[in-house]
Amino acid sequence: MMIFRRGLATATNATTMASLKKAGKVVCIGRNYADHIAELNNTRPKQPFFFLKPSSSILPPGEGPVVRPKGVDLHYEVELALILGKRIKDFDGNDDKAALDAIDSYALSIDMTARNVQNEAKKKGLPWDICKGFDTFLPVSNVINKSAIPDPHNIELYLTVNDKVQQQDSTELMLFRIPKILGDISKVMTLNPGDIILTGTPKGVGPVVPGDVMKAGIRIGGKELEEAKIEVQ
Amino acid sequence: MMIFRRGLATATNATTMASLKKAGKVVCIGRNYADHIAELNNTRPKQPFFFLKPSSSILPPGEGPVVRPKGVDLHYEVELALILGKRIKDFDGNDDKAALDAIDSYALSIDMTARNVQNEAKKKGLPWDICKGFDTFLPVSNVINKSAIPDPHNIELYLTVNDKVQQQDSTELMLFRIPKILGDISKVMTLNPGDIILTGTPKGVGPVVPGDVMKAGIRIGGKELEEAKIEVQ
Ligand SMILES: [Mg+2]
Ligand SMILES: [Mg+2]
Ligand SMILES: [Mg+2]
Repeated sequence: MMIFRRGLATATNATTMASLKKAGKVVCIGRNYADHIAELNNTRPKQPFFFLKPSSSILPPGEGPVVRPKGVDLHYEVELALILGKRIKDFDGNDDKAALDAIDSYALSIDMTARNVQNEAKKKGLPWDICKGFDTFLPVSNVINKSAIPDPHNIELYLTVNDKVQQQDSTELMLFRIPKILGDISKVMTLNPGDIILTGTPKGVGPVVPGDVMKAGIRIGGKELEEAKIEVQ
Repeated sequence: MMIFRRGLATATNATTMASLKKAGKVVCIGRNYADHIAELNNTRPKQPFFFLKPSSSILPPGEGPVVRPKGVDLHYEVELALILGKRIKDFDGNDDKAALDAIDSYALSIDMTARNVQNEAKKKGLPWDICKGFDTFLPVSNVINKSAIPDPHNIELYLTVNDKVQQQDSTELMLFRIPKILGDISKVMTLNPGDIILTGTPKGVGPVVPGDVMKAGIRIGGKELEEAKIEVQ
């Protein structure tokens, strides 16, 4: 069992957090950082591909622990999350300005993954929804005001386990940038206000076991963003 | 383009239908009828496996058409849908009475599937969420009062294309019955009131092309259930 604690410095915006839990859908991009693709021996996609996590998997700050299901090899994947403010459909993936306009706010998130269950699903050609969708498999930070992140393609994401840095990379390494991501998803499924998009994880994913402490956050120009902090014991 | 028309005999319950569109999640069972498994050359699962459809894919009566994405081999799968009335977690799959108690109402549904996209995903070990999740890929009937279906394991589902019967089987052929389904899903993800469960499709799935007319419905003891009718042109 790991205990999930709220960030130290910021209060939860209850209203916004409540609406997070009611997100119509959570759509996650896979394989969006080259070094992460290599570490899992995966193929680099020509197009962004994506999957869903159920909103029942969202774990708001302070509502832990993250529960490891029996027999599961539990991996962390730190990811920048977008919270949409507009309804978009067949969105033009080249329109940078419209993409930023469609974003209401951000959050930091950890896309917890039952890696052994996922490997089995891949081998058998089965859906990923179980390995990604267990209760508590989506710890999120407090909601981050849009103004706090002037350029979502130029922030540093990090995650430590027992204070050892495991993930630490800039979002400038995304293979598919946010406008392209929103374009591709919205050509399949309409995105609505409140929907959450996870933008993929950089290299360094790995296992956690009960007792481990995960901390994750965002740095902008070397400076810590307090409301993005996640701590999981 | 296919036009989706509301059932003839019953008015839509606007409130309930609105809440359908806001379903927290739609969870779908795969391979739950033996003859359907055989027709797609699939392996019979030891446990029910499941995947998500986004609520944005729901197509209420009268809000058609079903849109076929370019290049997609579009298949129908008629399925009984459960609409939950209770929050359940770690549910006992042997408790028949509690399972029925957890159901608020029913609907008939068509789990539209981009079969060629799904086959590609299976081959590559990629998620199913795209092939199952396009807008309009979940036509539903009007909401069916629970009292209209005394035994959900003893009704006939049918689907015709251009008035030719393609699917017609009893729900008694389900490999995993409803209590077991609710048990297995809720051991992974908490099910909340309003969540929708699709219980799998009998044999006879196949392609539809623009201009085809699909009709689907439920018969109980040979008698048509008016509120379950779906018509898609
Ligand atoms: Mg991920
Ligand atoms: Mg959902
Ligand atoms: Mg199906």
